[in-house]
Amino acid sequence: MGAEQLNIPTLDLPRVVIIGGGFAGLKLAKGIDSSLYQTVLIDRNNYHTFQPLMYQVASSGLEPDSIAYPLRKVFKGKKRFHFRMADVIQVDESSKTLQTSIGPIKYDILVIATGADSNFFGMENVKKYSMPMKNLVESLNLRSRILTNFEKALNTTDLSEQEALMSFVIVGGGPTGVELAGALAELKKQILPKDYPDLDIRKMQIHIVEASDRLLANMSETASVKTEKFLKKMDVNVWLGTQVKDYDGKQVITSKHVFNSKTLVWAAGVQGVPPAGLNATIVRGNRILTDEFNKVVEKENVFAIGDVAQIKSDQAPNGHPMLASVAGQQGSKLAKNLNALAKNITMQPFSYADKGTMATIGRNLAVVDLPFFSFSGLFAWLTWMFVHLMLLVDYRSRLVVFVNWAWSYLNYDKGTRLIVRTSEDKSSID
Amino acid sequence: MGAEQLNIPTLDLPRVVIIGGGFAGLKLAKGIDSSLYQTVLIDRNNYHTFQPLMYQVASSGLEPDSIAYPLRKVFKGKKRFHFRMADVIQVDESSKTLQTSIGPIKYDILVIATGADSNFFGMENVKKYSMPMKNLVESLNLRSRILTNFEKALNTTDLSEQEALMSFVIVGGGPTGVELAGALAELKKQILPKDYPDLDIRKMQIHIVEASDRLLANMSETASVKTEKFLKKMDVNVWLGTQVKDYDGKQVITSKHVFNSKTLVWAAGVQGVPPAGLNATIVRGNRILTDEFNKVVEKENVFAIGDVAQIKSDQAPNGHPMLASVAGQQGSKLAKNLNALAKNITMQPFSYADKGTMATIGRNLAVVDLPFFSFSGLFAWLTWMFVHLMLLVDYRSRLVVFVNWAWSYLNYDKGTRLIVRTSEDKSSID
Repeated sequence: MGAEQLNIPTLDLPRVVIIGGGFAGLKLAKGIDSSLYQTVLIDRNNYHTFQPLMYQVASSGLEPDSIAYPLRKVFKGKKRFHFRMADVIQVDESSKTLQTSIGPIKYDILVIATGADSNFFGMENVKKYSMPMKNLVESLNLRSRILTNFEKALNTTDLSEQEALMSFVIVGGGPTGVELAGALAELKKQILPKDYPDLDIRKMQIHIVEASDRLLANMSETASVKTEKFLKKMDVNVWLGTQVKDYDGKQVITSKHVFNSKTLVWAAGVQGVPPAGLNATIVRGNRILTDEFNKVVEKENVFAIGDVAQIKSDQAPNGHPMLASVAGQQGSKLAKNLNALAKNITMQPFSYADKGTMATIGRNLAVVDLPFFSFSGLFAWLTWMFVHLMLLVDYRSRLVVFVNWAWSYLNYDKGTRLIVRTSEDKSSID
Repeated sequence: MGAEQLNIPTLDLPRVVIIGGGFAGLKLAKGIDSSLYQTVLIDRNNYHTFQPLMYQVASSGLEPDSIAYPLRKVFKGKKRFHFRMADVIQVDESSKTLQTSIGPIKYDILVIATGADSNFFGMENVKKYSMPMKNLVESLNLRSRILTNFEKALNTTDLSEQEALMSFVIVGGGPTGVELAGALAELKKQILPKDYPDLDIRKMQIHIVEASDRLLANMSETASVKTEKFLKKMDVNVWLGTQVKDYDGKQVITSKHVFNSKTLVWAAGVQGVPPAGLNATIVRGNRILTDEFNKVVEKENVFAIGDVAQIKSDQAPNGHPMLASVAGQQGSKLAKNLNALAKNITMQPFSYADKGTMATIGRNLAVVDLPFFSFSGLFAWLTWMFVHLMLLVDYRSRLVVFVNWAWSYLNYDKGTRLIVRTSEDKSSID
């Protein structure tokens, strides 16, 4: 009945319902053979987000549409496929039904690809006052905050207030934190002095705070050292071995220093977001434990892929890293396995093929780790750009992003400095 | 004191304060000689909006950054110029001070360039439930509404509800209404059938409702006739001589017909928005009456330009039309006149040079009126595109808009179908 209400036809084929249109869900839905299954994809947004470039939206380098892609367009022409924009409220395993904001949806096979969200490790104040950057709306909020801070800094004669407005503390030395710190440093050098001639932009401080003893801990030692060098050269203050303790919207209290800052960007930790009602084994990082076929342990017809899943495997005893590449590979593999299952062919266990990791710090500056080789500098930067352009979902995005990057590079400019959020002030401490 | 708090230096030069960074305010601020005046420009946004293309943001054709331009960037390098993002609360003429959201700002010469906003002619229900499109945020809201309606239409079996969701009533047959109707017709033809294979897109109805007896009443008779023909060919229902009486969010009651529609786009009327506290003569359309030098009548040091101003002149006894071209020309002329004033040279009265008007209806379809010549069709459409590209403020916007238009034209596609507003549901009647 629920299915009827949503105008999704009931077929003789089994129905796979996928929650989440991120890298994992997208690859899975693409790979499912529509002669074998009916596919229903649910996401709370009508678009897929290319998360690796989100920091460029936050730092005025790109517009949202360049890194987001309408899900309906991805699946144009795919048979027995239905996308629904909805929030999942609860899984009801006994009746094989999802309760959603648009009504109940029946499933035969359920795949959880709900990804990860910020983890504040129980620090309620940090959660309340910091700016996360895990989705497009949060990225636009952060952009508005950064620019609004400078508008406010112009209008105050209170020097401590001005310092706090012009000081940015980024917590987390992973790729997101590093890339955002680099992008802010470029804003500081190239854009803000021209935009705010009435302000002394030297007062702008960019801090990156990392609890462990090196940046980009998932990458090679060489990459970490180079990245720290690049950031310091760009006038970013790097604080290693430093834990954030508390934040009241004005002062960031850490184990080493107290920062006077109105903007704390939280890029320090993520955790899986399993749906409510699922009676599964949840492990560290709030991830759902699965077998090596991504089947949720002790379930028959429920799978989990991507950031929200942790495979019990010898390859990665603590789970694979929460990376777009892992998620994409798991989605593709599960599609093959589900297609095999329908044909009574044996499923293949998942195994991650590491094709390398990379991060960009700024103009001509990036670090790249390939499985047996690391490099950095201009060539790494060109590699980073090429790979990211190719990873974008469609030709139009590639073209628009390329035009924007080429323009910025040639003109030392960032095009999109609009404050478009009216209610951005989550932590308006005035 | 106020000025000091805002970090705007007090100079020996007279200070011109301009409220509003639209076409009029922008041209004025650009033209002011900074050896003669200190200039302060105030706007509630940090960007200038190219209003003629706003309907393309609403109809998923362009992103906001393509038609909005950071004001600080426009004035990069201009001496004795200060931009402040603020709302004006009140004019205090006795102390020559503006009360603003960021504190008081003193002026020697005040220029009001606050433009126009939607006029609902006292229909409170229409104001409450309709979607206006007078700024970027409203345009994004409208885009989200249109796309969300289709998502909702998928999930209902109530046919009357579905009809209301898929029915769009545009009130106002001026350029905004006509161009939006055409853009929606293109969505209906090229995009929506592919995006929503589960919906019968023939159910989508586009109505344009105009109180007078022709579309584009400001243009030639030929243009009106052609436009009506083009729209009908594109499956838009044109209702002339039809007045809107009421709207409850579900039913649009007009003098000729009752429309079952959840989306009423209001493009039927605008009115000036003079600031509070100004003791001036306000005429029809809520405009400030000025002399032929754009000086507010009976004032010495207060001017008004653009949509908010009505010049008492023989050229236009009822005021010039509220057009970007009029506003721009008034801004430029006032800059020259203020520069002249400072040098004790006689000011020149404003006179509008009509360079022609045009509107685009759809692919290869537009109408152009030049002073002594009208044409339509493919060549008019190419002219429209060329002129609008050239009117964009900078090379980057031109490039990005051109890439988007070329892409859409070649691929029968619109790139930016993202629902990015979370709280769009101003009139959520579910």
